Amino acid sequence: MATTQRGGERVPPHPDVRTIGLQQVLEALVDPVRRRIVSELYAAPEPVSCGTIELPVSKSTATHHFHVLREAGLIRQFYVGTSRMNALRRDEFDESFPGLLSALMASSDRA
Amino acid sequence: MATTQRGGERVPPHPDVRTIGLQQVLEALVDPVRRRIVSELYAAPEPVSCGTIELPVSKSTATHHFHVLREAGLIRQFYVGTSRMNALRRDEFDESFPGLLSALMASSDRA
Repeated sequence: MATTQRGGERVPPHPDVRTIGLQQVLEALVDPVRRRIVSELYAAPEPVSCGTIELPVSKSTATHHFHVLREAGLIRQFYVGTSRMNALRRDEFDESFPGLLSALMASSDRA
Repeated sequence: MATTQRGGERVPPHPDVRTIGLQQVLEALVDPVRRRIVSELYAAPEPVSCGTIELPVSKSTATHHFHVLREAGLIRQFYVGTSRMNALRRDEFDESFPGLLSALMASSDRA
């Protein structure tokens, strides 16, 4: 995967959220495992490492899901040492898709 | 398809929106043609017949899309004469998924 060096951290590429369409966002969020990740990050006060979120899939499948979320502009990923950290791009996302994330999170207990 | 008689109108079965999960709703709305239908009904002051909404698919495919939306609790269908009419179940849907429909419709120009 292409990475750039910044301040000694490997930073994978992140799209500008303003270039992301609703179709890509919905394709990312239609998957329940990916919604689970977003819910955990939504609730977390700080960035979370990939391994911290318990998911019912293999590690490589989980990596794929994080990748899809990053490509859809939903999460920011960066390394701290060997840990890949994840944070929701909530402000940027809310600016492009007002109210969508909070509406989805409010309904997330409805399976 | 099973229909019930009510006031001389054939009424196809409609689920209670409160029994519908977010997963089913997102699977319905991830399809751009179905979002197009929902957008048209969202903007329409009155129920709309199936043929009125221009869609880039065959008539039988369109019928399938309307069916998926009905099963997901998003639209109500009923007959007036030989016309199958469609209306958004907006109040019921908003009660179960607060803010979701308006957030999606606000972003619907973002492809």
